[in-house]
Amino acid sequence: MDIYEQALEIHKKFKGKISTSLRDDQLDQGKLTLYYSPGVAGVSRRIAEHPEELRDYTWTNNLVAVISDGSAVLGLGNIGPRGAMPVMEGKALLFKKFADIDAVPIVLDVHTPDEIVATIKAIAPSFGGINLEDIAAPQCFEIEERLKAELDIPIMHDDQHGTAVVTLAGLINATKLVGKQLSDCKIVVVGAGAAGVAIAKLLHTYAKPEIVMIDSKGIISSERSDLNPSKQALLEFTNPNKTSGSLKDALSGADIFIGVSQPDLLTRELVQTMSHQPIVFALANPDPEIKPELAAEAGVAILATGRSDYPNQVNNAVAFPGIFRGALDNHVNKITDEHKIAAAEAIAALVDAPSNENIIPNVFDERLVPAIAKVIV
Amino acid sequence: MDIYEQALEIHKKFKGKISTSLRDDQLDQGKLTLYYSPGVAGVSRRIAEHPEELRDYTWTNNLVAVISDGSAVLGLGNIGPRGAMPVMEGKALLFKKFADIDAVPIVLDVHTPDEIVATIKAIAPSFGGINLEDIAAPQCFEIEERLKAELDIPIMHDDQHGTAVVTLAGLINATKLVGKQLSDCKIVVVGAGAAGVAIAKLLHTYAKPEIVMIDSKGIISSERSDLNPSKQALLEFTNPNKTSGSLKDALSGADIFIGVSQPDLLTRELVQTMSHQPIVFALANPDPEIKPELAAEAGVAILATGRSDYPNQVNNAVAFPGIFRGALDNHVNKITDEHKIAAAEAIAALVDAPSNENIIPNVFDERLVPAIAKVIV
Repeated sequence: MDIYEQALEIHKKFKGKISTSLRDDQLDQGKLTLYYSPGVAGVSRRIAEHPEELRDYTWTNNLVAVISDGSAVLGLGNIGPRGAMPVMEGKALLFKKFADIDAVPIVLDVHTPDEIVATIKAIAPSFGGINLEDIAAPQCFEIEERLKAELDIPIMHDDQHGTAVVTLAGLINATKLVGKQLSDCKIVVVGAGAAGVAIAKLLHTYAKPEIVMIDSKGIISSERSDLNPSKQALLEFTNPNKTSGSLKDALSGADIFIGVSQPDLLTRELVQTMSHQPIVFALANPDPEIKPELAAEAGVAILATGRSDYPNQVNNAVAFPGIFRGALDNHVNKITDEHKIAAAEAIAALVDAPSNENIIPNVFDERLVPAIAKVIV
Repeated sequence: MDIYEQALEIHKKFKGKISTSLRDDQLDQGKLTLYYSPGVAGVSRRIAEHPEELRDYTWTNNLVAVISDGSAVLGLGNIGPRGAMPVMEGKALLFKKFADIDAVPIVLDVHTPDEIVATIKAIAPSFGGINLEDIAAPQCFEIEERLKAELDIPIMHDDQHGTAVVTLAGLINATKLVGKQLSDCKIVVVGAGAAGVAIAKLLHTYAKPEIVMIDSKGIISSERSDLNPSKQALLEFTNPNKTSGSLKDALSGADIFIGVSQPDLLTRELVQTMSHQPIVFALANPDPEIKPELAAEAGVAILATGRSDYPNQVNNAVAFPGIFRGALDNHVNKITDEHKIAAAEAIAALVDAPSNENIIPNVFDERLVPAIAKVIV
């Protein structure tokens, strides 16, 4: 049985991955009159008068909605809300497992930004926070920005910011190990979807390195006429030397390659045009932009991938549980760049003895959630 | 401490009433690769190709959304979505407690029927069923009808149909006890909101008795010019003798009084104008239309109320857990009048030795959910 057949089997066996449960397991008839009618009227009246106390009396204090329209699910593309459900339920499982956060998967049968924003605003009072997931670029950018502006609960599109935070954490340790300053580095980011754009933005905010972005048509430059607005906006802080051309043109002399693109894009020859001690984050899933064996032969100093079976796994689950734990516990209503940077630094600092094969903590490291939550204030 | 203060205290202590939990408590790193990326891709792909298998692999097979816009919460009126949350979370607790159904409270920050329908349709693939709750009449009628027409999962507005089913169950036993046929009875229903309208419709479908409906302006009759469309529609099957006037005019010679209105509306004098062995369902909460002591003095043969501290409690929780248990387990996508009647008959049949003080099973009767679920096919 391959891994997909095993997954089908175990999902069918348990008929899903999450359930609801009762906080008070000593329920009797008397308590029901407090938890439900008539007693609950006192709680409803109180919250109607003091809406900010919603979190004191309801499960919203520990509750995140994991929301997707199914337009960019894993590597499967636009498979719709029902196809997205197992992934969102899986994310809810990770929230519970790693951060003891109650999370509810919500899949949306609407797909325009206006409809998605209207739907999420309509249901938002039900939740303490919102994790957007697997929504296609470029719509994901507008959707997240509008929701952050219009709602007063923490909202994060994890495909963007979770990946960016863990990537930054890894690069903080990686650059130290090779004796470089991130601010002095030339960084090539391949892939200008949700993750690539967020990584570039966060690196710029953190250290203002030289960043060149590449999409399927080559270097994102002002000479191109095919850029959508979100790619045009990247020109404000990337490609300072106004280069154009291919990945090969961009990579020459680069210190860091970050791929969120496709398998086997990065060849031995390309690596050998990079600067000394090259750092490669080959994050395409499940098959990275360069195979680890080839990367070693080509002279890559430090390699990170998205896989758990190689060293240095860039896994969003390192970051998002702690970020939401902190936002909920500390009543943080906007997750800012400062929060993301603080989270990345906290993650990087948890690696006790950084080495070329140990730049990112393991997702099962129990220090992660409290260390991150503490800095989300 | 009164009951409302006790309720505030216990809600604050547990910080809400429900949580999420994991179905498989033996989670290790290997299983995470099945429940989440990469293995879950196999499940997503399967459901994208066979959407009808969503229930086989996700928690939707056991999942009901409890949805309100907060426009008619308990007796508190339109207190908005946040004020409604403790009640909806309480309903989710009842779903779990009585039927082991996972239920998620969703409160809506939109209030027109168009917006409510659009929002619920957008999130509907997330759930296996929808319990509408505490939505004001007459909007609740349009909202439920449109959703039932447009979605392929079971939908029930419990304020309407839960109350109607338990009322019918009680009346089946009550009429037998007083030796009357329901079809021969004259029934006065006071209150033409969600519950009153649904009770009248279900009684008509079941037995075509003579029904007269009363609202705050008196008998609902064709002579009135102030009737909204849902009240006008009642004229198709109520008030066959085209009477008009007050409650007093309606009640003369009636066999059954059903109140979903306000406290102390039914006086001793009014009861004494009713037929012999009058049956009174005084369902206003928390204070019934007639106090039990007064009802006994006035000659009421059988009294039911909404309260747990008197005999014959008409409590929706007798019906809705079993109805949804059956709908989910038996893949029933529309809850029909036939289902509601079958549920009422199943409930009535569970009273082993009916007597004037024992016409409705207790909500804690463990035979209820399986007996009802069996007939929702």
